[in-house]
Amino acid sequence: MPIRPLAAFFRAARQSRPTASTAYLSHIRYYSSPAKFRAPFTYPSITKFAMAAITDSDILARFGALNLGAAPAVITHEPVKGGAEWRAELDKVGQTGVALTKTLLFKPKTAKTAEPTPVLVLAKEDTETSSGLIGSLLQLKELRLASEDLIKQVIPSAASKDDVSAFALPSPVPSTIFLLLDSTLASSTEQYAVHLTASSSTVLLKGTDIKAYLESISSPEAVRVVDFAELKAAAPAPAAKAAPAAKKAPAAAAPAKKDEDLYEMAIQYKKNEDFSGWYTDVLIKGEMLDYYDISGCYILRPSSYNIWQAIQTFFDAEIKKTGVNDCYFPMFVSRARLEKEKDHIEGFAPEVAWVTRAGQSELEEHIAIRPTSETVMYPYYAKWIKSHRDLPLKLNQWNSVVRWEFKNPQPFLRTREFLWQEGHTAFLEKHEADEEVLVMLELYRQIYENLLAVPVIKGKKSENEKFAGADYTTTVEGFIPTTGRGIQGGTSHHLGQNFSKMFDITVEDPKADAAARASGKDTKVHVFQNSWGFSTRSIGVAVMTHGDDQGLVLPPKVALQQVVVVPVGLSKGEGKNAPIYDACAKLAAELSAAGIRAHADLREGYTPGWKFNDWEMRGVPLRLELGPRDIAAKSALAVRRYDNHKESYPLEDIVNVVNKSLEDIQAAMYTRALENFNKSVRKTLVWDDVVPTLDSKCAIVIPWCEDPQCEDDIKDRSKSQANAGEAEDSKAPSAGAKSLCIPFDQDRFGPFPEGEKQQCIQCGKKAKSWTLFGRSY
Amino acid sequence: MPIRPLAAFFRAARQSRPTASTAYLSHIRYYSSPAKFRAPFTYPSITKFAMAAITDSDILARFGALNLGAAPAVITHEPVKGGAEWRAELDKVGQTGVALTKTLLFKPKTAKTAEPTPVLVLAKEDTETSSGLIGSLLQLKELRLASEDLIKQVIPSAASKDDVSAFALPSPVPSTIFLLLDSTLASSTEQYAVHLTASSSTVLLKGTDIKAYLESISSPEAVRVVDFAELKAAAPAPAAKAAPAAKKAPAAAAPAKKDEDLYEMAIQYKKNEDFSGWYTDVLIKGEMLDYYDISGCYILRPSSYNIWQAIQTFFDAEIKKTGVNDCYFPMFVSRARLEKEKDHIEGFAPEVAWVTRAGQSELEEHIAIRPTSETVMYPYYAKWIKSHRDLPLKLNQWNSVVRWEFKNPQPFLRTREFLWQEGHTAFLEKHEADEEVLVMLELYRQIYENLLAVPVIKGKKSENEKFAGADYTTTVEGFIPTTGRGIQGGTSHHLGQNFSKMFDITVEDPKADAAARASGKDTKVHVFQNSWGFSTRSIGVAVMTHGDDQGLVLPPKVALQQVVVVPVGLSKGEGKNAPIYDACAKLAAELSAAGIRAHADLREGYTPGWKFNDWEMRGVPLRLELGPRDIAAKSALAVRRYDNHKESYPLEDIVNVVNKSLEDIQAAMYTRALENFNKSVRKTLVWDDVVPTLDSKCAIVIPWCEDPQCEDDIKDRSKSQANAGEAEDSKAPSAGAKSLCIPFDQDRFGPFPEGEKQQCIQCGKKAKSWTLFGRSY
Repeated sequence: MPIRPLAAFFRAARQSRPTASTAYLSHIRYYSSPAKFRAPFTYPSITKFAMAAITDSDILARFGALNLGAAPAVITHEPVKGGAEWRAELDKVGQTGVALTKTLLFKPKTAKTAEPTPVLVLAKEDTETSSGLIGSLLQLKELRLASEDLIKQVIPSAASKDDVSAFALPSPVPSTIFLLLDSTLASSTEQYAVHLTASSSTVLLKGTDIKAYLESISSPEAVRVVDFAELKAAAPAPAAKAAPAAKKAPAAAAPAKKDEDLYEMAIQYKKNEDFSGWYTDVLIKGEMLDYYDISGCYILRPSSYNIWQAIQTFFDAEIKKTGVNDCYFPMFVSRARLEKEKDHIEGFAPEVAWVTRAGQSELEEHIAIRPTSETVMYPYYAKWIKSHRDLPLKLNQWNSVVRWEFKNPQPFLRTREFLWQEGHTAFLEKHEADEEVLVMLELYRQIYENLLAVPVIKGKKSENEKFAGADYTTTVEGFIPTTGRGIQGGTSHHLGQNFSKMFDITVEDPKADAAARASGKDTKVHVFQNSWGFSTRSIGVAVMTHGDDQGLVLPPKVALQQVVVVPVGLSKGEGKNAPIYDACAKLAAELSAAGIRAHADLREGYTPGWKFNDWEMRGVPLRLELGPRDIAAKSALAVRRYDNHKESYPLEDIVNVVNKSLEDIQAAMYTRALENFNKSVRKTLVWDDVVPTLDSKCAIVIPWCEDPQCEDDIKDRSKSQANAGEAEDSKAPSAGAKSLCIPFDQDRFGPFPEGEKQQCIQCGKKAKSWTLFGRSY
Repeated sequence: MPIRPLAAFFRAARQSRPTASTAYLSHIRYYSSPAKFRAPFTYPSITKFAMAAITDSDILARFGALNLGAAPAVITHEPVKGGAEWRAELDKVGQTGVALTKTLLFKPKTAKTAEPTPVLVLAKEDTETSSGLIGSLLQLKELRLASEDLIKQVIPSAASKDDVSAFALPSPVPSTIFLLLDSTLASSTEQYAVHLTASSSTVLLKGTDIKAYLESISSPEAVRVVDFAELKAAAPAPAAKAAPAAKKAPAAAAPAKKDEDLYEMAIQYKKNEDFSGWYTDVLIKGEMLDYYDISGCYILRPSSYNIWQAIQTFFDAEIKKTGVNDCYFPMFVSRARLEKEKDHIEGFAPEVAWVTRAGQSELEEHIAIRPTSETVMYPYYAKWIKSHRDLPLKLNQWNSVVRWEFKNPQPFLRTREFLWQEGHTAFLEKHEADEEVLVMLELYRQIYENLLAVPVIKGKKSENEKFAGADYTTTVEGFIPTTGRGIQGGTSHHLGQNFSKMFDITVEDPKADAAARASGKDTKVHVFQNSWGFSTRSIGVAVMTHGDDQGLVLPPKVALQQVVVVPVGLSKGEGKNAPIYDACAKLAAELSAAGIRAHADLREGYTPGWKFNDWEMRGVPLRLELGPRDIAAKSALAVRRYDNHKESYPLEDIVNVVNKSLEDIQAAMYTRALENFNKSVRKTLVWDDVVPTLDSKCAIVIPWCEDPQCEDDIKDRSKSQANAGEAEDSKAPSAGAKSLCIPFDQDRFGPFPEGEKQQCIQCGKKAKSWTLFGRSY
């Protein structure tokens, strides 16, 4: 089988590590998963599982003993995570169109002292195997995907959950393990791909042979053949859908309960299957944020706050170069001030939070918490700007604003309090303001593309979508391919003289001549204003863009931890591992001294596998594994988070190599995201293609007339009928498309096919521009 | 007369500048003060004032013509600002004990088109000459110290307000000028010091001769001799005190009114005379903050926010080195959470702001805005800390908190919303927490002493003064010599297990042996916690420490602008000054490129003198003046803000010289503040000295028993009786003393005089420590 030689070398090196040896079990025995460390406990029958890992040869030998026919060919390939990668690897070696299987190991909630009763499910890839339904069937509570530790107890050869294989179960299979086999698989004589001991080896077997194998290593009674379709149909309605456990967490999250089982290890949702469950799960397990006991408010934990600080550091330095100064206005706005400008406040009024009481006193005048700061700041602009010599006035604030939305909150994207910066500038000349609008927009693009590795498109908002107080709004628009929805990334508005007229922000025109002044003419001019804002929503966009089924994937430039050093190849016995721990600490210190945010994970009592999983969930860009062999070879095994690529790094040049690697990762993450982004933006020239293209989770670029009424019509006409009646967020996939922006770079989409005669594809009027439309957040 | 040769050189150079020439008047005519640029106007009779400046010789000639006796001797010295410097200069030349005068030029509020009616007051130095009283007397509205521009119109020889001299008035004095002479001066035959044309020349004259001179240049009727003491006595009670105009500003500050006269140029109060008026005046005119239309809330303008950012940059980097991570918790707290710990909340409850409404909806549960974050954060500590391996947990937030105090607000010191950082850490071992308490306290000391140039004393709070939730509180204590009040600068608390017991933050004791665990013993331990906080109050302390009668004085390390470059020696005529402006811009650019925060003030229409004053009020540490002579000599005249020292800097090495100068200024400001601080801390060994020492605006260090009851007794017993019945803030000078801290450095005060037998000077019990007591903020 064709495999890349280097990868084979590393895989071999990796496999030779004692990841499943009893060395690790000594830890597992006492600590299992960290959530359970709190109480001392041992599993009474843990030794049942603690046997030597079996090998591919063992499996083939067992299979041969069944006399079912010729020994199956073993296909070796790159390790895979999930069906898409597996299929791709099989494609590479000419095995196209193979039917895949999935093997899942669940653990129900049990008393701490009770023996674990894991559930192994082997099913066709596309069979719906809801943990809720399985739990009901087996009368087990709160089934969750098993932790890495439990996986290793049950299947010692498995290095990670991707290696879970029913074929690698010990024989006889302990009676405490529930073994479930998909009935459609069990009865099929088609061939299905299954792994042997690792996700890097595949054999093709008939469904009936799979059943025979499983029965041979346990007993025919022990293999429960389950018709999942029937199970689903029979289930009561509320259980028909996999319970979104992570989404329920806020209510249950009263921390005082110390319910350690609440957040299980490992991400419970697939990004492609339940995006919304996946999103909150990776955020919480990756320790980006935590729920809070006030709906719509979230705790920004260090991992996410560090991203915000990285954005602040970059942006603040850049705007200061342009003469912007930072300031801080109070969070409170008097009612009179807030309501001074009725039109402006109308948009915010339904969401304003009001302070009406202090201590025991009712306030005479109720006080608002700022939803934005125009009406807070501009009266002072009128006061401070006395002469054209006080211009330009360029102020920025880093603060939080409150918009008490009653819609379904979503971490980072729709929260009642959020952090942002708001810049407010005033100029004598319109052209100065126009220029600055684009300077700030370009900085926003740089934050997304250079820091967050998220591609965006710069453009102008349509009349319908611009900020109501602005002459025009520019935007950086992102797109989440997984959901097929566009997202506004940051906006830079030219306010014209709209606010300066409201707030009477004027200067004497320095160009007015003495004669005009002397004649008593009004030579005042209103200043031109901009405002531009960028919020923590950007963090959510980055998570959605890069995260995968293992958890967060953070771009190196903004990651709180860029590198984690994990000791591996540990031995049992007091003090034996000290040299490895020392080497890890030294390596982390060397990297830290060079300005790399590195950390050595020297926690005792966790297996390397558990640590790998932990740091993968947190999205740390680069893991360095250091064990006795690495130390002897003066190298470390480096594993990149974003593509799981493994490579040996020489320790003697480690700082340079790691720096280079982090740069590569940053660049490659952007490139990968850009490819996905570009694939998701489709030029669409006839109306009939619009809905199908949107339904295929793409944004469309169409020749458009820029007419507001036409935009409304597009929105109505592009709604899918399929999911009418569902709740807003579920409905989103079928929502109408709105304009995301009119891209500045029109050339990117080439000339109109019809040239000057190009019609808007919706209304047939003359098209003015290629415009990006899509469903959106 | 002995003068320093170098200084003389510069003075000569300075005097040769055409600061009062008609070159500047060309600007004055059109622009007057910037506050008035808004409307084009000319004073109808401006030409009355716009005459050539007179010289010292002119004055002496006029005096000689009066035939009052021998011509007075002219004493030349360094230019002086205010009485203290003047007295010091006279002392230098042997003229000790001379009675001084003061000459003030006021301007009433008049319609823009009306002719200005300035009021010149010449009085004995210590005569109370309230602008309010003078205004009532003359029936003029809102008297303010005149702007530099008006001064130059009235007295063309005056380069700044320090040079205002009645002797330099033109003759005849225009009838629009009110001339007021202190009656106690007019009738005295004692000799008084007066300036001639500048603050660098003094003559000694009898009071009666002064009167004769003034009458000779105007007319006997025109000189109004005023008995200020009688005027004060006759005034109605509310007017008996100089109206604290700046303090009234908030009410009047509705910016929409565009009342340009509201904030006049130049600081209206003397730091030593009306500290409270001075403090708000320098803050507003120095553009540190502005009042807001919600009482107790202030706008932090760039100058102050930059100080906060400098503090953030330093402190954040330092705490991260110790393993602290930043995070952000929501600003809202549910009622249940807030009130969970009754004892803790009791202290804050009367000041909590409550949100009860969002948009049009009444909230079912009212939501508090955090007054501090213990009850917000610690429930999550209980959740996140699952094992000793999760310790230490070290989090910090940069946020704002709200305490709706009903006491008289004071900018930075007592505000309803303020910015701070709050660190919250948890440890397994008490000794780790104890160590960290001091690490953070040391960082607080460094912020004060190294960044803000403010000396502090590190120590422990008494039982009465510690944070209620803490086992002990450590503090950095500052002291404001001008008011004689101590101020708590930042606190670092060891919370012991108080909160971990409330919130059940526990881990399994890693030292508990297996036997203990197996036997079912409770082997949980509660974590040890610290919290430490530092707020924007520190900015107020720095202003109070360094500011002077000219305005702010900012330490270079935190100043938004470190250097201002001002073009001088300008000529009239289009384009003539371009080379000077270019040289200034180039100089500022060169400094900026080297990382110095420099700015060239190239605003047209302001005189150099006006700019000097403007930047002095803002406290810019170093001014570089650049004119044709300087450019020719390849040098710039440098003027240090903090001591007004002038020196020529070579342009060819300007970056190094300026960097060195900024370092020197930073160090010298600290040294000067330390000297004042040390002078204000008096070892006091008998009770009878306590009140007199406090009354002399000092803190006391006494041998103390550390008994809480004794502290209460000290507080009661040390109150002065003098000012009973006054409002709280005015009363402060006579308030009782509380303990500020028990300094860690006990050696600083030497051994107790009585050694082991030393008694507490209040109660006579055995003294435990030298303790710092004082009146305080």
